[in-house]
Amino acid sequence: MTAATRQRILEAGAQLIHRQGFNHTGIQEILTAAGVPKGSFYFYFKSKEDFGLALIDHFGVFWRNKAEELLGDASLPPLARLEGFFAWFHEYFRQNGFAGGCPVGNLAQEMGDVSPAFGQSLARAIDFMAGRVALTLEQARQAGQLDLASDVEGLAYFIIASWQGALIRMKTCKDSEPLDIFQRVVFGQLLAR
Amino acid sequence: MTAATRQRILEAGAQLIHRQGFNHTGIQEILTAAGVPKGSFYFYFKSKEDFGLALIDHFGVFWRNKAEELLGDASLPPLARLEGFFAWFHEYFRQNGFAGGCPVGNLAQEMGDVSPAFGQSLARAIDFMAGRVALTLEQARQAGQLDLASDVEGLAYFIIASWQGALIRMKTCKDSEPLDIFQRVVFGQLLAR
Repeated sequence: MTAATRQRILEAGAQLIHRQGFNHTGIQEILTAAGVPKGSFYFYFKSKEDFGLALIDHFGVFWRNKAEELLGDASLPPLARLEGFFAWFHEYFRQNGFAGGCPVGNLAQEMGDVSPAFGQSLARAIDFMAGRVALTLEQARQAGQLDLASDVEGLAYFIIASWQGALIRMKTCKDSEPLDIFQRVVFGQLLAR
Repeated sequence: MTAATRQRILEAGAQLIHRQGFNHTGIQEILTAAGVPKGSFYFYFKSKEDFGLALIDHFGVFWRNKAEELLGDASLPPLARLEGFFAWFHEYFRQNGFAGGCPVGNLAQEMGDVSPAFGQSLARAIDFMAGRVALTLEQARQAGQLDLASDVEGLAYFIIASWQGALIRMKTCKDSEPLDIFQRVVFGQLLAR
């Protein structure tokens, strides 16, 4: 019951904050959307910042599960898995009107300079994302899909950055072009031998 | 006098919003920082949104002037100019404690989904940045520094996205690694023949 209510607050907050930003979303608005009585917020979270940190974990679990499902699919060659992973998100954003973007990137942009606790937690989230991509690139290197001399860690951080940057532009132009360009340059040029 | 006061409000707002975000910065805070009397804001701007749109132009002028100075320097080969341009910003961010990031990217992240007027104005700002980079890439192509078949427009948007994404991570980890990786992958791999 307690854990379920906490989860409901997190899910309602995740949706609102993904669209409106952290500062633009009030605690009362989140509780109303979650259908949770006024005043119960501080039973589950010490502060709005504490809630924000829990939200980073919440978004991280979603990303990690999707990565395990698609990047862990050993029936495909590593680079095809990686391309399919980003194509899955492309389709996800298409269905959501090209809004929202990367919640971790959004929070980094909005809160990275304002709160050291946010900054550190977001840095770890980006490290995790890049680490998962680097693992797949390392598998591609071992499978002969990438040059043996490739700096897989640097490439992984670069790919995550390029993706987050493409999502920034997507939020302004509301079409698929930024993600099309990302897929084309990363898989047609950068990782193509 | 009038234009100078408007400019002072824009400059004070630019500094605060670059660090804190748009929603996190109040009109009164901007006026105090600018040393401008309370109440005069609405003489210069119709609304906070109107101020935000003027701010996008203000940031755009800074970027355009720097681009003209460094990308327009015909004494260097085109790709060396482009590398120097991003290196200049790298040094700028180092001197500013790796805070702030790209103001256009920040506003796109924060306001792209919330305000259509912001979204369109930011899309135009990103188009302008990519267009200026594409011009330099086209000069590199004509000078034999890039393959003749290069998609310079796609590459330009991709490079701007990679840079904005690197700046997102920079705000969380507060060191030069994200920008180091950007320079290394873009100029050592993506644009290297």
